[in-house]
Amino acid sequence: MRRIDAIDFFYLSMPTILDIGDGGQDALLVRVVAGDQVGWGECEAAPLPTIASLVCPMSHSACKPVQASVLGQPLDDPDDIARIHREVRLNSMDLLQSSHALSGIDIALWDLLGKLKSQPVYELLGFAKAHPKVPYCSLLFGDTPEETRLKANEAQRQGYRAVKLGWGPFGHQTLREDVDQVEAAREGLGPDGILCIDVGTVWEADVEAAAQRLTVLEACDVTWLEEPFHTGALGAYRALADRSPKVRLAGGEGAHNEHLANLMIEYAGVGYVQIDAGRVGGITSAARVFEHARARGVTFVNHTFTTHLALSASIQAYAGAADQVLCEYPGSPTALARDLTLDHLERDDDGEIHLPERPGLGVDPDPETIRRYLVDTEIRVDGRVLYRTPTV
Amino acid sequence: MRRIDAIDFFYLSMPTILDIGDGGQDALLVRVVAGDQVGWGECEAAPLPTIASLVCPMSHSACKPVQASVLGQPLDDPDDIARIHREVRLNSMDLLQSSHALSGIDIALWDLLGKLKSQPVYELLGFAKAHPKVPYCSLLFGDTPEETRLKANEAQRQGYRAVKLGWGPFGHQTLREDVDQVEAAREGLGPDGILCIDVGTVWEADVEAAAQRLTVLEACDVTWLEEPFHTGALGAYRALADRSPKVRLAGGEGAHNEHLANLMIEYAGVGYVQIDAGRVGGITSAARVFEHARARGVTFVNHTFTTHLALSASIQAYAGAADQVLCEYPGSPTALARDLTLDHLERDDDGEIHLPERPGLGVDPDPETIRRYLVDTEIRVDGRVLYRTPTV
Repeated sequence: MRRIDAIDFFYLSMPTILDIGDGGQDALLVRVVAGDQVGWGECEAAPLPTIASLVCPMSHSACKPVQASVLGQPLDDPDDIARIHREVRLNSMDLLQSSHALSGIDIALWDLLGKLKSQPVYELLGFAKAHPKVPYCSLLFGDTPEETRLKANEAQRQGYRAVKLGWGPFGHQTLREDVDQVEAAREGLGPDGILCIDVGTVWEADVEAAAQRLTVLEACDVTWLEEPFHTGALGAYRALADRSPKVRLAGGEGAHNEHLANLMIEYAGVGYVQIDAGRVGGITSAARVFEHARARGVTFVNHTFTTHLALSASIQAYAGAADQVLCEYPGSPTALARDLTLDHLERDDDGEIHLPERPGLGVDPDPETIRRYLVDTEIRVDGRVLYRTPTV
Repeated sequence: MRRIDAIDFFYLSMPTILDIGDGGQDALLVRVVAGDQVGWGECEAAPLPTIASLVCPMSHSACKPVQASVLGQPLDDPDDIARIHREVRLNSMDLLQSSHALSGIDIALWDLLGKLKSQPVYELLGFAKAHPKVPYCSLLFGDTPEETRLKANEAQRQGYRAVKLGWGPFGHQTLREDVDQVEAAREGLGPDGILCIDVGTVWEADVEAAAQRLTVLEACDVTWLEEPFHTGALGAYRALADRSPKVRLAGGEGAHNEHLANLMIEYAGVGYVQIDAGRVGGITSAARVFEHARARGVTFVNHTFTTHLALSASIQAYAGAADQVLCEYPGSPTALARDLTLDHLERDDDGEIHLPERPGLGVDPDPETIRRYLVDTEIRVDGRVLYRTPTV
């Protein structure tokens, strides 16, 4: 029987963090060790508070540090991961940030188990094969419609069959300017490409502000409108969904457990549920959401804006679905996000990507990159060092 | 115009933390300073990750440290608090733990504003007066029915008109043992007292396990069954609520924003929504939930298991409701929770409590107690000290 001997969190960061909606400017990498085998994962999370949730002192029986439920646990098959996952949820229930820490750890545990059993993660999840996915190129809106048109056009020329524009000025400007942005995106992409729009919760819970944009979204044949509202504003989602039969709503990336994601499906009326394995509770939670979505006719899509380690992790949960093929693909990664792995899920001649047919996630981080971007961090409580940046 | 000059977080802890469901074993106290005036608040949260969420480096535009949206902001009237609150929600959207940090800061801002204007917080919220509340004595189940009976009886002899038993062995043992516990609680309290049962999410999402206990809960005239399921398992709540017209469900303490709390009301079918101002987003969010609940015929109750500073903060949001009188009251506080304030909301001869008629929350922490329980903490990133325990 193997046991989990160590969990290490690595805080990586670009030298400068810009005040833009690019979540790939830093990273929180997770390494779990069992005997001579190592697994890797990634939290899509603010690194420092997530590190603190791993190592903090216990507050009470339902507010324990995440590592208390993981270190020393047996790890021989998928049931062990399910048990560890449940223990973290119960023992750290009142520690909000624990969901993000659990996510990266759970991913690393699946990677480790796959390596122990010489199987890709999707096989461990019960899928006979991994179907190819059609990546949509995920880009920030340009500051001007012209810049947006050029970005969409560049993606189309690179062979992308689908593009998503998001954040930037959209929703913060006049209706007319927003219309110009959407029209520019469609023009740049051409008439045949799949176009999605992501507004990053800009309207909070204001259904009317969102509804004003439906006309241009329909006219430009937009496949989905993503995150019109705050993650929790499900009543607003539902009201807008009822008014928009053609342009479906998408959301769910903010869900930090499967319960919240399932509410997006059952209550909010989304057509696409977008799940980041690095936030929702890892591959374990993501796979449960996929089952729930499929049973209810809602399309599962990964959320990934960072590394190809995170990309592989987020696709595993729905790898076996031949009918759910769209896949978020980081279109202009930071140097950190790009170089974190030497292997990448490159598009083939059909513009599709394939999960690696290797054990675990099939994508390991590059130690050189870790060392280059590693942020020296130390946390002391009561004279004891609870965390110090580990060595690679 | 006043501006917020400083935010200080104080991590307090009992010398030893026991592995029991008592959230009063540590505390995270918040001090905000504007000019020569000081306000105090408290986060109901794991201290270390919450401190990290206050001071961490920015990850991207929607994942900023909480202090970035608070320091330097004008603070002259309630609209300023609403604006700061909204900024934190937007700028720290992807920083999960930020909700708990915001909660304590928001409470401290209301306290500060009340002191600046020489008004109690409930007046700033628009209530003409604060109606007395009937405190229920909140206790952990005994390890045996006999111990539970003695606890309930002791509360009754102390003059409590209502008692809640929770956590401990309940739900982890056989149905027969659970039945014995509830019967013992009723016996100890006597036939007239209000009896509530809190099971601390023990059944996760298992409706049948919960439903098996409904018979004894009805027979013992239990007012509410609290937290049968995980905070997010709203479908399970709804299913159980439909099967239990007499014993109403209660929940909501885990909600970290008003959207989630409102879903407990709209979707989960609870009869009582329990809100901790130290978690939900402060008094600002709590007051919004109160309005939402009242409009839908659901009873608002505070959640407080710690200090009388937290108690005053959590009652403000529904202080003006003459028809919503039950109030959670920490029945056996830790020495830290008891001594954190010199003033207490003591029960009068009718067994009722009253909010202080003093500016702000009317309950200040005792500097001696802070110094006695203060936990020395330091966080360093990239050679810079981001946090060091402040002085009182």
